[in-house]
Amino acid sequence: MKFRIGHGYDVHQLAEGYELSLGGIKIPHTVGSMGHSDADVLLHAICDALLGALSLGDIGKHFKNTDPQWRGMDSKVFLSKVTEMIGEKGYKVGNIDSTLILEEPKIGKYIPEMKVAIAKCCNIEPDDVSIKATTSETMGFVGKKEGLEAHAVCLLFKD
Amino acid sequence: MKFRIGHGYDVHQLAEGYELSLGGIKIPHTVGSMGHSDADVLLHAICDALLGALSLGDIGKHFKNTDPQWRGMDSKVFLSKVTEMIGEKGYKVGNIDSTLILEEPKIGKYIPEMKVAIAKCCNIEPDDVSIKATTSETMGFVGKKEGLEAHAVCLLFKD
Amino acid sequence: MKFRIGHGYDVHQLAEGYELSLGGIKIPHTVGSMGHSDADVLLHAICDALLGALSLGDIGKHFKNTDPQWRGMDSKVFLSKVTEMIGEKGYKVGNIDSTLILEEPKIGKYIPEMKVAIAKCCNIEPDDVSIKATTSETMGFVGKKEGLEAHAVCLLFKD
Ligand SMILES: [Zn+2]
Ligand SMILES: [Zn+2]
Ligand SMILES: [Zn+2]
Repeated sequence: MKFRIGHGYDVHQLAEGYELSLGGIKIPHTVGSMGHSDADVLLHAICDALLGALSLGDIGKHFKNTDPQWRGMDSKVFLSKVTEMIGEKGYKVGNIDSTLILEEPKIGKYIPEMKVAIAKCCNIEPDDVSIKATTSETMGFVGKKEGLEAHAVCLLFKD
Repeated sequence: MKFRIGHGYDVHQLAEGYELSLGGIKIPHTVGSMGHSDADVLLHAICDALLGALSLGDIGKHFKNTDPQWRGMDSKVFLSKVTEMIGEKGYKVGNIDSTLILEEPKIGKYIPEMKVAIAKCCNIEPDDVSIKATTSETMGFVGKKEGLEAHAVCLLFKD
Repeated sequence: MKFRIGHGYDVHQLAEGYELSLGGIKIPHTVGSMGHSDADVLLHAICDALLGALSLGDIGKHFKNTDPQWRGMDSKVFLSKVTEMIGEKGYKVGNIDSTLILEEPKIGKYIPEMKVAIAKCCNIEPDDVSIKATTSETMGFVGKKEGLEAHAVCLLFKD
């Protein structure tokens, strides 16, 4: 098939004493995202969408959260490696669309910089990446500010 | 790229004293959806999927929930405007698939009318739109009837 | 349109005294998935994605959870029937990507067998199916082990 579709979902807890990495950049905030790597929920969802489109497993398979080499790792490294795997299968990224679900902070002003960071890892243009954001309207664990989630979809193509 | 993929997600609280707008129509129910506009969770998710496919931002960017002109607004107006934006970029909607997650009421009998309403806004046929529904099996904020969610995906194409 | 996109979501409660059917196989575990059929959350999400791509309704419409003939039914039967419906419309499955969200057990070792089971129902190759898994990091109803969720996307094509 010339085209392949992928979907990724990720979730992380928020806590004091951690940095908030989102879409490949650091966002100033009172709490941050907990995890083995930099816990970038958006990049993890995108990695999973890309891997899933070609049935290459998931991020937990390729970058085990028990492996010391990935501790605190910048998830842009994961996204670049995943893009390489896609390329080795003869595919390129067509476009990526994603949604962050988090109660705060407002992230609109950081989106252009995130798009550039993600596009660079994936060898595409910033406008081939989309990042949207919504709150959970104070409901559920996202609404209670205990955590944050991300969904991503991607379309891959073969030349 | 000839094809682009998008994903949208939205959530709203349910409360007494509000109308329940879903998929472009009013559904009789004991509670309704809270929000600045008519709070149509399904149309908002679809708008976000369409915008996301072309990296045009999200519904909150184009129709700010602090702007008095959108207070109580029929979200079909948003969907028509988003379809226009897609068209200006040279794209058309191929198909839309969506899922409503709500505990009650049962919405099956309203789906044909919703499909017609959405198709009209998007300049497509009713069978190019799909609306599915599921409960959250009494779990979480949807299961507790505090709110409702929607997911949507879309495929856009360029002639 | 030559291509169509679909998205499916499903959720089930977990409880003692039920089997855990996931991706078409039985997984040994202390709790299982509650529902009218075998309550296979992954196959249900995939069925809904396939149906949704062609606007054929949802799994609840075609396999009513009040119909005695589906009680305890193996959901692979549903998936095979849905694949037939797709075929009758002139479409084939391009690829399927899915994500299971469950706190335990770890399902990585079962994924190859699930891929084979799903591929067989859908008349595709195992590598045209992707199954990923993540926990909810102890948050929400999935994190509390009250239930489990699945998302699936699919790309269909017409020859
Ligand atoms: Zn993660
Ligand atoms: Zn909304
Ligand atoms: Zn189900």
